[in-house]
Amino acid sequence: MSELSSRSGVPVATVKYYLREGLLPEGERVAATRADYGEEHLRRLALIRALIGVGGLSVAAARAVLREIDHPPGSLHELVGSAYMRLPSSVAGEGAGDGAGRAAALLDALGWDVAAEECGDEAAGLARALGALDAAGFALAEDDLLGYARAMGGIARGEVARTPAGSLPEAVRYVVLGTVLVEPVLLALRRLAHVEYSSRLLAGSAADDPR
Amino acid sequence: MSELSSRSGVPVATVKYYLREGLLPEGERVAATRADYGEEHLRRLALIRALIGVGGLSVAAARAVLREIDHPPGSLHELVGSAYMRLPSSVAGEGAGDGAGRAAALLDALGWDVAAEECGDEAAGLARALGALDAAGFALAEDDLLGYARAMGGIARGEVARTPAGSLPEAVRYVVLGTVLVEPVLLALRRLAHVEYSSRLLAGSAADDPR
Repeated sequence: MSELSSRSGVPVATVKYYLREGLLPEGERVAATRADYGEEHLRRLALIRALIGVGGLSVAAARAVLREIDHPPGSLHELVGSAYMRLPSSVAGEGAGDGAGRAAALLDALGWDVAAEECGDEAAGLARALGALDAAGFALAEDDLLGYARAMGGIARGEVARTPAGSLPEAVRYVVLGTVLVEPVLLALRRLAHVEYSSRLLAGSAADDPR
Repeated sequence: MSELSSRSGVPVATVKYYLREGLLPEGERVAATRADYGEEHLRRLALIRALIGVGGLSVAAARAVLREIDHPPGSLHELVGSAYMRLPSSVAGEGAGDGAGRAAALLDALGWDVAAEECGDEAAGLARALGALDAAGFALAEDDLLGYARAMGGIARGEVARTPAGSLPEAVRYVVLGTVLVEPVLLALRRLAHVEYSSRLLAGSAADDPR
């Protein structure tokens, strides 16, 4: 275990914690006080760190994600729904908040037929997110919201088309990690693009005078 | 204060906490033991709840965001950079992790010239996010990463173009709330689109047989 710790850079106490919490499987016991940890454990440890670190998952959520990866659902079609039932919603909080009507109207306008049992808490998450914008006094025009949905739909369509359809274990890794770990990539790219485009578009504009 | 609490649905203890933490300004004192809270306070309270709830901000981060809104920077051009220096990064953790080289190559390929002093921790955040994907064994092809950047760039370009350029206080609200509160909308839309497109594209595909 101390070798696993030194090779991975994860402290022994943390490795023991992941073992206790069932995130990391036990090594192969070779003596009463010694277990062997191999490359598989090293890869698993890196995955756990990515989920809990950049992925921002709690230990319980990481356990659910790993369980999904370890026990893929019966079919590719079930995969996304099954994953989203286990993953925490991308939107903090619970319930649909005040945005339920607007969210339902949007999904209707898009022709997206997403039943609650297929998408976990995400439809409620969208409703919460729209309700929060409204509560904060941020007026998001209907056309702009549709534009967001079409842009994210385009991203998602490409991702679904790229799902490795030949192997369920690979497909589940792709869907689960592609959800949890690609989200931060997308958000960072949007913010960086804001910086880039505001320096291109806003520098020297009317309001750019010191007040 | 009890009226503010009952009208907003926020418990008195929580209102007092926000006052103590400097998120909510004091009401106008009308007697030694009584202060008046008006519509402005009600709106402010809704904004705080949105930032801390769906926005997922800590009290300290919410305070920084509110300070940005209360004290806009000197020019529209400074706005995005100034906001991002105060906001927590969209990617959990610190430092650039192992993805710094890949992030720099991507920004270079895109021609995005984003200096660290303009984008807070976001370039490091992108590097962290890419490093975590790599550590988790998720192979994100270069073309797919470029596709993500172009899609998010398209979203951001439209947002920057819609910035209300005539008024700095309005512009700062737009940028800050548009960052913190639109992010959950985008993520929820991507997940819902996954559900929609996997039912359109994956149902009945080769791997869709029970194993």
